[in-house]
Amino acid sequence: MQDKPVVILTPAPQRRDRIFTASALARLQDRFTVVDLEADHPADAWDSALPHAMAIIGQPDLDAETIARALKLRAVLNVEGNFFPNIDYRAAFARGIRVLACGPAYSQAVAEFSLGLALDIARGISREDRAARNGAERYVAEGNTDAVLLRGSDVGIIGFGNLGRALRPMLVPFAPHIRVYDPWLPDAVLREQDVEPSGLDDLLRASRFVFMFATVTGESEHLLDARRLALLPDGARLVLVSRAPVVDYSALLPELRSGRLHAGIDVWPEEPIPADDPYRAVDNVVISGHRAGGITAAFESIGDMVVDDLELIAAGLPPARMQAAAPELVSRYRNRPVSGAENATRRQ
Amino acid sequence: MQDKPVVILTPAPQRRDRIFTASALARLQDRFTVVDLEADHPADAWDSALPHAMAIIGQPDLDAETIARALKLRAVLNVEGNFFPNIDYRAAFARGIRVLACGPAYSQAVAEFSLGLALDIARGISREDRAARNGAERYVAEGNTDAVLLRGSDVGIIGFGNLGRALRPMLVPFAPHIRVYDPWLPDAVLREQDVEPSGLDDLLRASRFVFMFATVTGESEHLLDARRLALLPDGARLVLVSRAPVVDYSALLPELRSGRLHAGIDVWPEEPIPADDPYRAVDNVVISGHRAGGITAAFESIGDMVVDDLELIAAGLPPARMQAAAPELVSRYRNRPVSGAENATRRQ
Amino acid sequence: MQDKPVVILTPAPQRRDRIFTASALARLQDRFTVVDLEADHPADAWDSALPHAMAIIGQPDLDAETIARALKLRAVLNVEGNFFPNIDYRAAFARGIRVLACGPAYSQAVAEFSLGLALDIARGISREDRAARNGAERYVAEGNTDAVLLRGSDVGIIGFGNLGRALRPMLVPFAPHIRVYDPWLPDAVLREQDVEPSGLDDLLRASRFVFMFATVTGESEHLLDARRLALLPDGARLVLVSRAPVVDYSALLPELRSGRLHAGIDVWPEEPIPADDPYRAVDNVVISGHRAGGITAAFESIGDMVVDDLELIAAGLPPARMQAAAPELVSRYRNRPVSGAENATRRQ
Amino acid sequence: MQDKPVVILTPAPQRRDRIFTASALARLQDRFTVVDLEADHPADAWDSALPHAMAIIGQPDLDAETIARALKLRAVLNVEGNFFPNIDYRAAFARGIRVLACGPAYSQAVAEFSLGLALDIARGISREDRAARNGAERYVAEGNTDAVLLRGSDVGIIGFGNLGRALRPMLVPFAPHIRVYDPWLPDAVLREQDVEPSGLDDLLRASRFVFMFATVTGESEHLLDARRLALLPDGARLVLVSRAPVVDYSALLPELRSGRLHAGIDVWPEEPIPADDPYRAVDNVVISGHRAGGITAAFESIGDMVVDDLELIAAGLPPARMQAAAPELVSRYRNRPVSGAENATRRQ
Repeated sequence: MQDKPVVILTPAPQRRDRIFTASALARLQDRFTVVDLEADHPADAWDSALPHAMAIIGQPDLDAETIARALKLRAVLNVEGNFFPNIDYRAAFARGIRVLACGPAYSQAVAEFSLGLALDIARGISREDRAARNGAERYVAEGNTDAVLLRGSDVGIIGFGNLGRALRPMLVPFAPHIRVYDPWLPDAVLREQDVEPSGLDDLLRASRFVFMFATVTGESEHLLDARRLALLPDGARLVLVSRAPVVDYSALLPELRSGRLHAGIDVWPEEPIPADDPYRAVDNVVISGHRAGGITAAFESIGDMVVDDLELIAAGLPPARMQAAAPELVSRYRNRPVSGAENATRRQ
Repeated sequence: MQDKPVVILTPAPQRRDRIFTASALARLQDRFTVVDLEADHPADAWDSALPHAMAIIGQPDLDAETIARALKLRAVLNVEGNFFPNIDYRAAFARGIRVLACGPAYSQAVAEFSLGLALDIARGISREDRAARNGAERYVAEGNTDAVLLRGSDVGIIGFGNLGRALRPMLVPFAPHIRVYDPWLPDAVLREQDVEPSGLDDLLRASRFVFMFATVTGESEHLLDARRLALLPDGARLVLVSRAPVVDYSALLPELRSGRLHAGIDVWPEEPIPADDPYRAVDNVVISGHRAGGITAAFESIGDMVVDDLELIAAGLPPARMQAAAPELVSRYRNRPVSGAENATRRQ
Repeated sequence: MQDKPVVILTPAPQRRDRIFTASALARLQDRFTVVDLEADHPADAWDSALPHAMAIIGQPDLDAETIARALKLRAVLNVEGNFFPNIDYRAAFARGIRVLACGPAYSQAVAEFSLGLALDIARGISREDRAARNGAERYVAEGNTDAVLLRGSDVGIIGFGNLGRALRPMLVPFAPHIRVYDPWLPDAVLREQDVEPSGLDDLLRASRFVFMFATVTGESEHLLDARRLALLPDGARLVLVSRAPVVDYSALLPELRSGRLHAGIDVWPEEPIPADDPYRAVDNVVISGHRAGGITAAFESIGDMVVDDLELIAAGLPPARMQAAAPELVSRYRNRPVSGAENATRRQ
Repeated sequence: MQDKPVVILTPAPQRRDRIFTASALARLQDRFTVVDLEADHPADAWDSALPHAMAIIGQPDLDAETIARALKLRAVLNVEGNFFPNIDYRAAFARGIRVLACGPAYSQAVAEFSLGLALDIARGISREDRAARNGAERYVAEGNTDAVLLRGSDVGIIGFGNLGRALRPMLVPFAPHIRVYDPWLPDAVLREQDVEPSGLDDLLRASRFVFMFATVTGESEHLLDARRLALLPDGARLVLVSRAPVVDYSALLPELRSGRLHAGIDVWPEEPIPADDPYRAVDNVVISGHRAGGITAAFESIGDMVVDDLELIAAGLPPARMQAAAPELVSRYRNRPVSGAENATRRQ
């Protein structure tokens, strides 16, 4: 028992049993000495385990002093989708401590949801289903006056991280012309992915479908403002699934109301959406409550990712499944660990 | 002028200007002497044009006697999605006359719509949008209790004609296990398409997602009856976009009401759907009014297909875009030309 | 026994046991009454079987009078890659008799071989292997002075029948710009395949790799002559695997000798290649003896295709695996059944 | 001038003008103050530039003391395919200095070459070309007795780093069953790539085609020894393009001579290959002189990668094109910088 590496498990605000299947938990406990701070533990469990821990599963505050006491620490595996500013990354990196997040756990779920939203607003699926509930459905061509194909269309992707990379192969069979705006990536990286690098304004002017995958940084606040939304061609379809602050929702509203644009929206400036939010009455929008990523299959993959990477780290190999914090980027993130339901859905 | 081949245009119940763009019509008129029976014509236009016509665009009745009078006829290009029993195919084939239909015009639209329905019911997109309109939307995991991924799932396709072939490449990025039931195709044809040939019952037992693309024949009536629907695993998703008679809707209803199955439905035993149809109140269904194929892009592709194939036929080459009637199959189809809006949506 | 449909088997110059595996033959004999004219049969076997035969496997002469005697004939399944002029197609089509050929049996083999030749001449694989046998191999960059990538390159395909369609998906991962010249196909058919329709001269001017898949017709003789070969950019790679007459080999020779072009060649104006043929001494060419299609896996697929399609025909369904003769094209083919080794390799 | 970040350029044993196109060099000089140690420089250029350098392009010895003097150093961009032990990685990482290598520059070239070798030995392309030079070519089926298809075959990939990931998409159109052995990767990573994780012995027993992409570590020496080679099925095809020490060439020789196996080999225990090496006379092998990666397009991509990543680093963003040294792995590599032609071809 004493030979197994010590791992501290403190997943809050996530919950152990949502992110670990029984088999993943058994694998974790079989390979490691798990100090489970979610279960019943003496008050000093953290302090006494810290100097012996090879790894921490969770996102506790880790200042330089705390890191200094974690003499054997080699990795912090947060079980959320983003990196948070409650770690002294400089102190961790100087020690060679890996800081990992599980954003990739949500990528497939978000990408599938995004494609589903895009096809929905391309064809009015939710809108006509709503109409049918009121006996007002329209048949054949009458219900299709503004329907468009995805095949062969111009598609814009804003932000080409995990989400963009997960979506791209799903678009390929539609033979689209894909433009990507990502100021953090050289053009060559995008061309290797068979997409066209583009400025943001050019992307908006050209695209019938736009997927907004940008994360929140100082520069991306209201990246889509009234001026930029006006660049979109009539009938454009907008899929918003990353973070609400990157779009000016008050500028978007009249574009949807007028029927000029269509949108599928999963993230909102305020959640829950206020009862009197005017978006609730707009016809050209599909409303979703921050559900793109947080599905059971995604949650359960987190535990597997954690155990897989812990095994690699224990074997002296680099982690292969979670996303490692980049020293250059950590200071740019504005995320913070959050409580309750919301926590699973912040994504990069 | 007299040297151009004569083509009779009689598209009813389709309409000339819905299926021909201005440029397609100009191309048609530039290459052929068009006798346009939709426009203003003398009563005997048909009879006087018939002996000189190289081709007929449309689906008029053509019995053996009429075909005998069409001395120069080489092709009948119907502008609907199916073949109809109002032609004496034997007489046409004996003369080497091609009979063509434009089912392929709708395949892409139907396939995209089908994938959209599948992703919608996988994730409850329309259902939660409906809830949001009543202020009852659920957030994150609470709204995702029955959400599933398409990636890596078992997918069944019933009928592997134009629609199945159009859908298959769109599924590939999801790395599914695809089983196909098609009694008209040898296993080797399916294996060449990288899908697994399957009996129908085995397909139903194994599949999380089922796409019903079967056409109506004597054997396919109520192909999905209560016994077969019961074979589907709990939580299965059913996409119905081909023809209503192939499913027993009264047997499906309780499976949806109980929450055991989910369905996206575009075709109905009676259209318009009766005002008191119980399906209108079922939560686990997405209701669509026969809209999968009949979009502007599909209609407008018909004229292009017609002119492309007419040019080939005039040049002594085989048609390459429309679907040629197979002598073995024409007697099996139960379709008939229909009036008004419905006509565009019957598909194979 | 008497209830099984009668099938006449006369595969010469093919051989029964090369094209039928034991299991395919067993399946044939189980489902049909086989009159095997390759095995020991009385002299009048053909004449006595003909009036009863549902199908003929092979490519015997079938003039109108013979067809008239074949009262029950519904299909002729030739077991070669092309259609031959020894059938009165008009008489067959008037009776609704299907004439089928098994070109598709060779498509995969030819396409893989073509890609192998293209990669070989892109990188000098055979050339440097030859050098190594003489102790003259060159290392690393020294052996790579004219090596090029396939990825991202301009590719031209001449003729987009079975072979072009089999090759195209293999090229997709290389993200090439594919231009296709095929005068028998409308542009829209090519665009649906995600390739760019092109004139032949434009294709040649633009392409680093050219695949010659054209079949022999009156118009395609010396399609690539000195003038057209000169259009190819310096360093272009030419893959010749369809039929020799479509290229002027005497015009190609100096282009290879000078080092300006590279070629992989499987078909030759004279076969066997004359002992003193100057091509034997050219360094920039890979020489192959008509081997692109005739591999065991291809031969053995023929029997499977034949039995699959016979079963469909017996069930009143259209054949699904072999290629049906197009009335418009049969008069254009110049092929004839040939003896011995060559027979397997004629392809469309 | 003094405001541009300082970059030291010391590419030996690479050469500046092989890895930088004129435009890449211009871009480098436009954005950075380049201290070019390959060009004519005073003897103390290194020592005087070091304290001011933001980055070093090349692979000079960097011990802890040297790194300590490089006060502003943020990245070392080596211009070879691997990491070398002449850097004190611990000292670099403690400072947050990125160490990058350009292995990805060679991946596409090696993957294309590997597929070319596989198709060559599947079909005997080089072997029959060699025969033709001696007037001994064989035609059609006679030359194809051991020819096999790639389509639908069992493929094994040993080592799934850059090369395996570059090759995999090229195999997809052949619908193979791909097994991968990589002890550094969890099964889930491989399954996400749609390949089957496998033990090495099981992989060898099952595979008709095997691609050896393993790098050299203490554990991988003679990974393919006589026992393991014997596991391969008769007629298996082996592609060796990574590093020679991972295969026992003396054990492989009799398997090739007997005709039981076929191989395409680009790396050799001794290079140049000795004049009397028995491999030179073996028919079932394609011999290549370490040419898989070192083509002009690969070399020239290095300069682009370097400038792209330098620009990102200067902007405070993580590098996106070169491969970052993993702290866990650097001690395992056995590579060393080498002189002359060989240097470009060591790959991971």
